[in-house]
Amino acid sequence: MSTYDKHLSRAGLALRESAIRRAGDRGMRLPDAISFAPGYPDPEGFAWEELREIARDVLSGSDPAVLQYGPTRGYPPFLAALPEVLAERGITAADADSIVTTGSQQGLDLCARVFIDPGDVVLVELPTYTGAITAFGNAQGRLAGVEQDEQGISIDDLDATLRRERQANRRVAFVYVVPNFQNPTGMLMTRQRRAELLEWATRRDVLIVEDDPYGALYFEDVSTAAETRPIKADDAKGRVVYLSSFSKTIAPGFRVAWITAPAPIVAKLEIAKQSADLCSGVLDQRMVFEILRRRVLDASLPRLRAMYQEKRTAVERALRREAGDLVRWTTPSGGFFLWATFHDRIDTGVFLDRAVAHGVIFVPGSPFYVEPRGRNYARLSFATPSVAGIETGVRRLATALREEIAATAPSERRVAG
Amino acid sequence: MSTYDKHLSRAGLALRESAIRRAGDRGMRLPDAISFAPGYPDPEGFAWEELREIARDVLSGSDPAVLQYGPTRGYPPFLAALPEVLAERGITAADADSIVTTGSQQGLDLCARVFIDPGDVVLVELPTYTGAITAFGNAQGRLAGVEQDEQGISIDDLDATLRRERQANRRVAFVYVVPNFQNPTGMLMTRQRRAELLEWATRRDVLIVEDDPYGALYFEDVSTAAETRPIKADDAKGRVVYLSSFSKTIAPGFRVAWITAPAPIVAKLEIAKQSADLCSGVLDQRMVFEILRRRVLDASLPRLRAMYQEKRTAVERALRREAGDLVRWTTPSGGFFLWATFHDRIDTGVFLDRAVAHGVIFVPGSPFYVEPRGRNYARLSFATPSVAGIETGVRRLATALREEIAATAPSERRVAG
Repeated sequence: MSTYDKHLSRAGLALRESAIRRAGDRGMRLPDAISFAPGYPDPEGFAWEELREIARDVLSGSDPAVLQYGPTRGYPPFLAALPEVLAERGITAADADSIVTTGSQQGLDLCARVFIDPGDVVLVELPTYTGAITAFGNAQGRLAGVEQDEQGISIDDLDATLRRERQANRRVAFVYVVPNFQNPTGMLMTRQRRAELLEWATRRDVLIVEDDPYGALYFEDVSTAAETRPIKADDAKGRVVYLSSFSKTIAPGFRVAWITAPAPIVAKLEIAKQSADLCSGVLDQRMVFEILRRRVLDASLPRLRAMYQEKRTAVERALRREAGDLVRWTTPSGGFFLWATFHDRIDTGVFLDRAVAHGVIFVPGSPFYVEPRGRNYARLSFATPSVAGIETGVRRLATALREEIAATAPSERRVAG
Repeated sequence: MSTYDKHLSRAGLALRESAIRRAGDRGMRLPDAISFAPGYPDPEGFAWEELREIARDVLSGSDPAVLQYGPTRGYPPFLAALPEVLAERGITAADADSIVTTGSQQGLDLCARVFIDPGDVVLVELPTYTGAITAFGNAQGRLAGVEQDEQGISIDDLDATLRRERQANRRVAFVYVVPNFQNPTGMLMTRQRRAELLEWATRRDVLIVEDDPYGALYFEDVSTAAETRPIKADDAKGRVVYLSSFSKTIAPGFRVAWITAPAPIVAKLEIAKQSADLCSGVLDQRMVFEILRRRVLDASLPRLRAMYQEKRTAVERALRREAGDLVRWTTPSGGFFLWATFHDRIDTGVFLDRAVAHGVIFVPGSPFYVEPRGRNYARLSFATPSVAGIETGVRRLATALREEIAATAPSERRVAG
């Protein structure tokens, strides 16, 4: 409680900090630690040389608008380039169906502004992305968790939850899903489940907010592009608000993402964005557009897939070797995350301190849930550390885990006895 | 009304579009028009050569973090450079007292989130910046206008308004002011009035949100740096939330601005920013930081002041010559704006169509008011057009004005008769 609390709004007082950001800050204060915490792409994958050339070209001074305010909707040639990007994913869209956002986090925030009034319900996967939890929660939305099975979000539980919330006279704003290599579970929703979800949303008149930052990063040993086809690709009835980003494939420092949605929704998002930040970074949009125009991703995406696949293989190999008896997980078929289930006796929120003492960091499972759960889960991002770092990090993690189990065993026996 | 309206939140349905952005879009569709509408800096003032060098240096690849996610609070060396920038304005601040924002528009939006609940009152100058009106309005704040006299916001009216609102049991969130070369009036609040405002805010326990994007751009023929001393500089009691930006002095395309405020408020703003966009553009912050570190502004600020002063002189000269009988104004002593009072018979919202037909654009006065007023006012931004463009634009404006007066005269007589 500070002396300023009386000046804060109820919404301001209720603001919740991001658990990932907190863990990330912790990592930055420990430069020798191996961090599996933040979902940061590996800068080795950035197209440094091309970006230097592009910066030189766009700053040549021939177009003064490159450093000027830009349209709220986005840099028009970039918007005009998006239909081709989307078409590769099976999505048919016109230029007018998209709006640039300052990272997908702003996309989530704009959705919160446009769809959520205080007390409205947002249906989310259990577990789900913490950035979505904070964006929707800070708009004073009420988050209702829906179970996932091995195919993805459970339609039965989704329908039961919807009916329960509507019976309680609460307005359901939308259902939020991350079908491709979900954050935090790394899970890929099956094509069949996507079809069922879309059918359900149409039948129940619920909007789907589909967040797809990782779709392009499938691992070719266990997955295919076809399996990442967005729900939006089959959205004949305009049920889907689709968010995607170049933060994982070009670089996050640019803060260039976008939303593709039915035109009346995009128009509303644009007005919300006017008061949020007027426009996204103009030089950033130009640079990302030039990466697209020069077809840099054609060459870099296969390389990125292979790089992250190798890291995924490294983290699994190390976990099997060092801690096969203490950790369970499902092989990630793309993206950045391995969702680890630890020994029952581990409370990852408590265990983190010991892990930090051993020089390894992760994000505990609980913050990804909207109810008290996830006690013995952890999200391990294998994207940022090198393969050697992954090896070292998992070794440290295993040592810390064995210590924690030994340390917690007696007190449990006392409780039992 | 679209078929999606039922999916929108009340806040989403109530979102208001920015009048300036609308006028700006109009200008972009008419490439031959002279636009006095948007408050865009002149790209002639951007440090193109230095920025090209800086881009090359920071993208050299020696620091991979330049394209990575960054801390929500901002790039630490940039935050560490702000105290010196602030000290030049008389403000004593530690690194921890500031947070980077994605343009000052995000600063206004974060203030809205942290301070305003639906129905809370924000006290604003009459007229005031439309971007503030939309940011505070979209948070469902209730904007209460306060008169200005030739010294700035009227303390008597401010106090009367505060008492009225509190008597009506409404929570007053803060008072919002733009003391330096106000948007839209170009007005400079006197030092005495600033002191009175701060004393009043302390006495009445009201926070001041002080927005200062133009302070560095005073015109040396009629003004001095001392006159632009921010209210924040004398804020011993921590009453002032100070917003400033490099959009007008380096370039707006970077979207790099900041807020300096008491540390507990900055901590709250940081949490709000986490869910708003995670972090501002990282390359952008690096580039702006390098501009500061290399002391580019030391040379460019005097040049910018002279450039905008010359334009101010040009617009006044042209107005006097072409339309001295039809337009009144007060000489702007800095910034980008001349606030024009037209002949009583002109309704600038209606007149804009005729002006556009003559190839000249401005922003009508009404959107800058939070009550039905400003009918015969217009904001003329003299920052973007060249001196020759200003001459042509004012000529067109004068022709359109004479036509409008001739066209409206008979119908007024009919009404009177």
